[in-house]
Amino acid sequence: MTRIGIIGYGNLGRGVECAVKQNDDMELKYVFTRRDPSNVHILTDSAKVMPAADITKYKDDIDVLIICGGSATDLPKQTPEYAKSFNVIDSFDTHAKIPEHFANVDKSAKDSGHIALISVGWDPGMFSLNRVYASSILPDGEDYTFWGRGVSQGHSDAIRRIDGVADARQYTCPVTDAIEAVRSGKQPVLTTRQKHTRECYVVAKEGADKARIEKEIKEMPNYFADYDTTVTFITQEELDRDHKGIPHGGMVIRSGKTGWDCENSHVIEYSLNLDSNPEFTASVLIAYARAAMRMRSEGVTGCKTVLDIPPAYLSSLSGDELRSHML
Amino acid sequence: MTRIGIIGYGNLGRGVECAVKQNDDMELKYVFTRRDPSNVHILTDSAKVMPAADITKYKDDIDVLIICGGSATDLPKQTPEYAKSFNVIDSFDTHAKIPEHFANVDKSAKDSGHIALISVGWDPGMFSLNRVYASSILPDGEDYTFWGRGVSQGHSDAIRRIDGVADARQYTCPVTDAIEAVRSGKQPVLTTRQKHTRECYVVAKEGADKARIEKEIKEMPNYFADYDTTVTFITQEELDRDHKGIPHGGMVIRSGKTGWDCENSHVIEYSLNLDSNPEFTASVLIAYARAAMRMRSEGVTGCKTVLDIPPAYLSSLSGDELRSHML
Repeated sequence: MTRIGIIGYGNLGRGVECAVKQNDDMELKYVFTRRDPSNVHILTDSAKVMPAADITKYKDDIDVLIICGGSATDLPKQTPEYAKSFNVIDSFDTHAKIPEHFANVDKSAKDSGHIALISVGWDPGMFSLNRVYASSILPDGEDYTFWGRGVSQGHSDAIRRIDGVADARQYTCPVTDAIEAVRSGKQPVLTTRQKHTRECYVVAKEGADKARIEKEIKEMPNYFADYDTTVTFITQEELDRDHKGIPHGGMVIRSGKTGWDCENSHVIEYSLNLDSNPEFTASVLIAYARAAMRMRSEGVTGCKTVLDIPPAYLSSLSGDELRSHML
Repeated sequence: MTRIGIIGYGNLGRGVECAVKQNDDMELKYVFTRRDPSNVHILTDSAKVMPAADITKYKDDIDVLIICGGSATDLPKQTPEYAKSFNVIDSFDTHAKIPEHFANVDKSAKDSGHIALISVGWDPGMFSLNRVYASSILPDGEDYTFWGRGVSQGHSDAIRRIDGVADARQYTCPVTDAIEAVRSGKQPVLTTRQKHTRECYVVAKEGADKARIEKEIKEMPNYFADYDTTVTFITQEELDRDHKGIPHGGMVIRSGKTGWDCENSHVIEYSLNLDSNPEFTASVLIAYARAAMRMRSEGVTGCKTVLDIPPAYLSSLSGDELRSHML
């Protein structure tokens, strides 16, 4: 049994708890929280909620600590810190800062003799894997990544910060024509606007100027100005009823050529259609917790990413079983 | 530079030659053939054609030997034999016999201090990888594999063996309704007939009884009897003009549930759409030749499969580059 600890009990932490339940070789021991533990109610009877401040007291009771904090401020501090005492996994997703995060976590994990997996999830994560496999197989080609249809928390938050907005939910949507053009093998050059649209469902406060809110959303730089954006005003009841899920997904497509004169086209596509973004991410984290344990038992220390892990290490099946049934 | 040797110069061997050309860190040194070398004309000016019987003379000039024989009779003998003198890769695809082939090759490669990768291609190969990743992430779920639309050499050969048939080409086609049912997340139970159809294009010999040929095809056990099969008689000219390509592809889909009460559905799909089956398989082989060299340089010996290889090993990019640009 791999003994799992969770630090941070939001949507992702709860997803990890559910994923542990689905894997017979995993056991949730502790959930650590910065809140008052008596106010945090978890689903697993056999696990305990403890204050985050006391976490190192439990280092001998946990094989892998899943760090479920945010990438902006939590993980850059937490992952190097906790890697001093635990084997850790995070889902750090600020792509541009991965090299810096990797260096910090690698030093901490190597110095203390632990293994640390960072940026585990689906993007970065499974999408990254597929970019590497596909571009290695088809060196003469182009990569395309589409996201959605799915909820973007960052864009939803950006709308909520506008004066007069009570609540909001934003969906990122891939453009069907762009996907079809890529699938055809034509290797089109696509602008930001051609690849995705943005759908916004907004609850306005009473008396708020809806025309002004819509204009502010559509003209917001970086978030919306470069996209075809639709704004639909709805009631709080409608938002709670129709938009409470956290679906997401997307696809990585590589289109490339082979042959002596590059005369043949090939398209490799990996796609995800997810009812729950945090629960799927959590399921990836737990599969990699198994891999982390295997690598640590072989003496591996330091920071690793999904690109460094043999696929077989994620499975609960043995090498013999995998070769007999999955290969 | 990784120095590549090819043994067997059919469609796959020629595909490997083309793939080497697309990879700057690879160099084709020798093509070995059981035919008279003076009758084998390769495309690479700088490489030489040599008799297969002399292959061991060149063992110090080749880093990885790509064995391009058939799975039925060639590879079970060739791969263990050549692993005595070379690092080798094959695309052995008789799924049921992989454990036996693995054991034979593993012994030979370990005894001689080489690395051997078997069953490298897309199925087994990239499809296997995706089955393992997806089932490890979503343990409560079902796997589905669809093949095609693509040419099945085995089924084409089976038709050609029927009395009165001059030539034939068979396409395996996935059933759209079945794919859509799987994508919906419903986890349907599908019969063989519900998943694929078979399209046969047949050139009859002059005076042959076409009705009898069609009946023999449609009733052929294992190959056609369990499928909805269509038979279209065409001329040799039409076959040569419209059916000379070797396209293939297919998809691996896993549909699974997460959540405390398995209330959320997820669909993971990996699909390939290939103009040339042998050239794509060859491109996978060459990416894994790079991985084989890396693992050998780390001291690894014995038999491995795609399930044992970290994705990063396939890429010509460094770990730093991959983390900066691909993760």
